[in-house]
Amino acid sequence: MTTPTSPTKVAPGNSHTSAPLPSWNEGPAKQSILDFVRKVTSGGDPQFVKPEDRIAVFDNDGTLWCEMPFYIQLAFAFDRMKAMAPQHPEWKDNPLYAAVLANDVKTVAAGGLKGLLELATVTHAGMTTDEFAKIVEDWIASARHAKFNRLYTDMIYQPMLELLVYLRANGFKTFIVSGGGVEFMRVFAEKVYGIPPEQVIGSSIVTRFEVVDGVPVLTRLPQLNFMDDNVGKPVGINMHIGRRPIAAFGNSDGDLQMLQWTTICAGCRFGLLVRHTDSVREYDYDASSMGKLDMALTEAATRGWTVVDMRNDWNRVFAFEAGK
Amino acid sequence: MTTPTSPTKVAPGNSHTSAPLPSWNEGPAKQSILDFVRKVTSGGDPQFVKPEDRIAVFDNDGTLWCEMPFYIQLAFAFDRMKAMAPQHPEWKDNPLYAAVLANDVKTVAAGGLKGLLELATVTHAGMTTDEFAKIVEDWIASARHAKFNRLYTDMIYQPMLELLVYLRANGFKTFIVSGGGVEFMRVFAEKVYGIPPEQVIGSSIVTRFEVVDGVPVLTRLPQLNFMDDNVGKPVGINMHIGRRPIAAFGNSDGDLQMLQWTTICAGCRFGLLVRHTDSVREYDYDASSMGKLDMALTEAATRGWTVVDMRNDWNRVFAFEAGK
Repeated sequence: MTTPTSPTKVAPGNSHTSAPLPSWNEGPAKQSILDFVRKVTSGGDPQFVKPEDRIAVFDNDGTLWCEMPFYIQLAFAFDRMKAMAPQHPEWKDNPLYAAVLANDVKTVAAGGLKGLLELATVTHAGMTTDEFAKIVEDWIASARHAKFNRLYTDMIYQPMLELLVYLRANGFKTFIVSGGGVEFMRVFAEKVYGIPPEQVIGSSIVTRFEVVDGVPVLTRLPQLNFMDDNVGKPVGINMHIGRRPIAAFGNSDGDLQMLQWTTICAGCRFGLLVRHTDSVREYDYDASSMGKLDMALTEAATRGWTVVDMRNDWNRVFAFEAGK
Repeated sequence: MTTPTSPTKVAPGNSHTSAPLPSWNEGPAKQSILDFVRKVTSGGDPQFVKPEDRIAVFDNDGTLWCEMPFYIQLAFAFDRMKAMAPQHPEWKDNPLYAAVLANDVKTVAAGGLKGLLELATVTHAGMTTDEFAKIVEDWIASARHAKFNRLYTDMIYQPMLELLVYLRANGFKTFIVSGGGVEFMRVFAEKVYGIPPEQVIGSSIVTRFEVVDGVPVLTRLPQLNFMDDNVGKPVGINMHIGRRPIAAFGNSDGDLQMLQWTTICAGCRFGLLVRHTDSVREYDYDASSMGKLDMALTEAATRGWTVVDMRNDWNRVFAFEAGK
């Protein structure tokens, strides 16, 4: 009954008004965005920034789309592990793998980052990059969020989608900078966010170039290459973009260093945290094993970063609410 | 007597004609480029490629600018080592470092890739990314090529600059994919090639995020992070761009895998090798410790890659020849 949200649908859906950010309620959060964009795009303003330097970076999980009750990519890893399990009878003797096969998220979460990384490498490796993309494509076209019974590509935040479109309309180049897997996100980022593959930065496993039967392939190996989270985010930004963003958007302590790197320097800078405060339309959490918001929230106060109160600042969370 | 070449000067310099690629002589090399671009950009053609998929990747050393008598970045490393030497009296006891300080290029070259990497890490690390960029900026503004007595930014190939401009005018997104240091190239790539930092892919050393006296910095460490050469080029392309190029331009065996990855697959693809055959206007070499062209040249014949004969295919190599 619903079609995947795509950036091209933003305008028609809001055709009753030409004002930007229609899903944002009037208030300090929305106003801070409008003020910032006005300053950096107004030719006469001392804080004007040339279009090529208007780089904006967005975390993905919990910032652009839902990360509860657990990361969407973890749901993918669960499904992959179940699909691969018949070929791996030995997995039932591994407590972590057995927990996955038993849908025991609590035990998996207790394994922390180390456990998640192990699951990711085991389930995301052993095929070529093209084969992996096809697996993700098929999965994302059918898997559904348990609470909302929606495709995961419908679980993106409508206000953030409008923000992406608004920034691009003002000459910004928008990038995703996520702890999630770069080759996982690239499968859908262009379609749902309008962000092309070359503007997606994420974590990765090692790939190896080889020519198999005369055909060059990149084979995915079960070994971490780069962790694009926490201190890794500024490193990933520098590696891929090579210039410092002027605006950064996140929602958790994993985004702290990205916001520091973006905002603590000369020039007009903008930092924003999405705070999950809406247990009805989405979820309400600060303390959580995933998407924990603590240190970054404290620092937001001293740095002047905008903190979005999802319940009060957004009049719509998901596009599929529109018909309500 | 000369000003740095910049992409904006291409058009005025060729204002007598509106035909593309004026520094290319008529012949099969030029024609192969024109034919390829016509096919992938003509709406009615079965080989039409959407603009967003028109990705073109260029090697740098020996493809976009001169790499003889040795890599320009090695000249930078030599100068850095001499500048740092007073603080390192112990270097005189290291044969490799002593060779650098004595301008003994032959001994350094005999050290192979391992030696070059060691020099790069020692001379390119120990400062922040911002500090490094400033050092490169100052160096590139004054250092000169020994044979031509020109700034290194004047040592770029005019025909390749025209090719970059021509491809971009036809909807292509142009990337550098080089074994050279990514943070070295980014300092000048936008100015001399019109290629922004986020479209430069190269080798890198490890950087570490830290907050020093309240200021977030990325510190460069003397440790290799990624080697963007040979089998590393397809890996780097996939990591940064996330889609397969449709055209690849190189000049040496270090570009072989990039050309394989780009051209051996479905769809209309283009591969090109610049062959250095001009001992008068530039250099004449296939066999060389740097920029060796052997396997890739052999494969070019079977793959149908275009091989540019610099002496015969280019009527001008450098922009500074114009006044001749």
